[in-house]
Amino acid sequence: MALVVQKYGGTSVGDPDRIRNVAKRVIATHDAGNQVVVCVSAMSGETNQLVDLAEQLGGERPDPREYDVLVSTGEQKTIALLSMAIHQLGRDAKSFTGSQMGMQTDSDHSKARIVDIDCSRLRKVLDEGAIAVIAGFQGVDPEGNITTLGRGGSDTSAVAVACALEADVCEIYTDVDGVYTADPRVVSGAKKLGSVSFDEMLEMASLGAKVLQIRSVKFAKRYGLPIHVRSSFKSDEGTWVTREEDVMERLVVSGVTHNLNEAKIRVKGVEDHPGIASKLFKPLSDAGIQIDMIVQNLSSEGTTDMTFTVPRAEYKKAVEIANAAAGEMGASEVEGDDAIAKISIVGLGMQDHAGVATRMFTTLANESINIQLISTSEIKISVVIEEKYAELALRALHAEFVEDGAAEPSPE
Amino acid sequence: MALVVQKYGGTSVGDPDRIRNVAKRVIATHDAGNQVVVCVSAMSGETNQLVDLAEQLGGERPDPREYDVLVSTGEQKTIALLSMAIHQLGRDAKSFTGSQMGMQTDSDHSKARIVDIDCSRLRKVLDEGAIAVIAGFQGVDPEGNITTLGRGGSDTSAVAVACALEADVCEIYTDVDGVYTADPRVVSGAKKLGSVSFDEMLEMASLGAKVLQIRSVKFAKRYGLPIHVRSSFKSDEGTWVTREEDVMERLVVSGVTHNLNEAKIRVKGVEDHPGIASKLFKPLSDAGIQIDMIVQNLSSEGTTDMTFTVPRAEYKKAVEIANAAAGEMGASEVEGDDAIAKISIVGLGMQDHAGVATRMFTTLANESINIQLISTSEIKISVVIEEKYAELALRALHAEFVEDGAAEPSPE
Repeated sequence: MALVVQKYGGTSVGDPDRIRNVAKRVIATHDAGNQVVVCVSAMSGETNQLVDLAEQLGGERPDPREYDVLVSTGEQKTIALLSMAIHQLGRDAKSFTGSQMGMQTDSDHSKARIVDIDCSRLRKVLDEGAIAVIAGFQGVDPEGNITTLGRGGSDTSAVAVACALEADVCEIYTDVDGVYTADPRVVSGAKKLGSVSFDEMLEMASLGAKVLQIRSVKFAKRYGLPIHVRSSFKSDEGTWVTREEDVMERLVVSGVTHNLNEAKIRVKGVEDHPGIASKLFKPLSDAGIQIDMIVQNLSSEGTTDMTFTVPRAEYKKAVEIANAAAGEMGASEVEGDDAIAKISIVGLGMQDHAGVATRMFTTLANESINIQLISTSEIKISVVIEEKYAELALRALHAEFVEDGAAEPSPE
Repeated sequence: MALVVQKYGGTSVGDPDRIRNVAKRVIATHDAGNQVVVCVSAMSGETNQLVDLAEQLGGERPDPREYDVLVSTGEQKTIALLSMAIHQLGRDAKSFTGSQMGMQTDSDHSKARIVDIDCSRLRKVLDEGAIAVIAGFQGVDPEGNITTLGRGGSDTSAVAVACALEADVCEIYTDVDGVYTADPRVVSGAKKLGSVSFDEMLEMASLGAKVLQIRSVKFAKRYGLPIHVRSSFKSDEGTWVTREEDVMERLVVSGVTHNLNEAKIRVKGVEDHPGIASKLFKPLSDAGIQIDMIVQNLSSEGTTDMTFTVPRAEYKKAVEIANAAAGEMGASEVEGDDAIAKISIVGLGMQDHAGVATRMFTTLANESINIQLISTSEIKISVVIEEKYAELALRALHAEFVEDGAAEPSPE
């Protein structure tokens, strides 16, 4: 007998008919001899309505404690309705709010972190042969206040509970049927992956974020819990996100991603001596701005240029801070560009293959696309290019590495 | 410094503007130097939507535990929104679900009874100078399951918390501005009462039920807690429901009520010996049918006729049971009538005034209204008449006893 945790997102429980369908799927899994925990989000649209009410009464920044009390009602509705639907179909089910399921978090409202999960009540219900229906996204702090986990919290709830219960798998049901080698809306040849490693999934954030919250992947990686991303509307297998050794195909490149949400800032003519970088990056991080890529080039005059990327929404603020810092650093100039795209290729196989980078750069050069920045990790190469070439680059790289994935490096 | 518990019903918190108005009223009471606990219902319409969803997914009899999980989200929404609105106006407020406020009940879902209230968290918040906003209607059972108190539960929550906190008053805000001497929709001369005793209020159930749940009056009576029923939309004083000794006016009759929700059943020719009544009433009460008036007349032949009233909704079932029992009792006939009205006059002053009954019967006789049944208590006289005369009787009695309330008994 396996223990299966299933998670259904807002679209999958968007109306009574869909909730009934989820009930049938849950029961099918249960009747196949598994213990089942189901984690659900608020019905689609529900959270937006609640947020709208919060803005009307609490203004732009509603009281965070009360905000959590409000939005947590969304999932509470769904757990009750799904449990009723399961009862109607003749099986036993019991619902649990965040507090009732023992989801203990810190007190950081709207982005609380999970501290511990006391699974005793869930285990009891499972041992009695019932299906446990749990509210995603919510928890309780040490003082008994309702908390929420923030964006994508329901995926994280499901995976965290699966880890705590030492489940065999956490199935994430969503409105797409798995993780693709590229965004299918841009690359028509994009293929669904059978399996992908935790690390690849983390690097493929911009693909994965649409189907799977990155935070939940980190959790699963830590505990080695396999996640199965699949469609709520079809019964086909989806994509398994799992430990490296359990990934079947060892593709050189398993995904090509693009990210249009960054902007680039360059501080020129910085004197090159130790500690200079912190003069620039400390005020940026103090302002809560997340820095992604950082590249430093020594110029011929003994000064250096520092280039980095920030979220596009923070671009203006970041330029202001960089200008102020540039003065203190004695830098000559700050210039920026928010019409950029970050294109990445991700793959476990890259570790063993020399020449992948060269092959990537050549492919882009063949399309006359100029590379502005490069950064690499063990299993990823990212480049920054002009935004207008993003789709062209994506298609070319996908054709080169995925559609002809097994081919030898193309000649220089 | 007084401790004031205020309760606002669904209409009073029906939309964001109304919630803001409630926030202003609450703050005015707080700023006047009082400690304030506010108990709220679900926004009007909300509960119906939830019940509709429950029927769609749980059928006619949704699982009771899950039903409570579902409907309790209605009040949870309101407490969060009201707390936000209070914050927006610059005062501190903290919301509490039934569980968080220590409202401990038994496990009888959808009609749970309050077992105890642990007010420590509420007291702490009040001592810190904040306003406590509590969810009406809901509690938690010893296993941590969410329960609801059933119909009118929010009034009961407010009064129970006020009793537990030893509050100075429980103010019930509603869409009418107090308790009237008769239903103003029927009797144009109906007047708002300044004060009324607990016992009068209980006897005036059919008037009071529209503004105040009878269950909450019983609670208040037990603890001697004054209830102030008043309008959420005006600032005028409403009606105080309080101990007999605190009632200002000592009216002979403080209210004239009518009830069209009963039906009458008569079992004729019953042999008059001890224990015979239980043969009839035991099966009725076993079937959960509530019996209101019971009248027994000895006929000349040494047999007796037993007449009683039941809720009109239970009329058919009651007739069937009475027919079966009549067989066993050797009764000659069962007849019934569901086109009846029960008209009552209620007043503390009645205890001291002889002749009130006579005056009532005369008033009705003057209108040629025949009296079918009579029952009396210390402070109430009820008669059953033909339904079609209900409004006429009500107006005549109101004119006689209330509009000319101080007048001497009319001559026979």
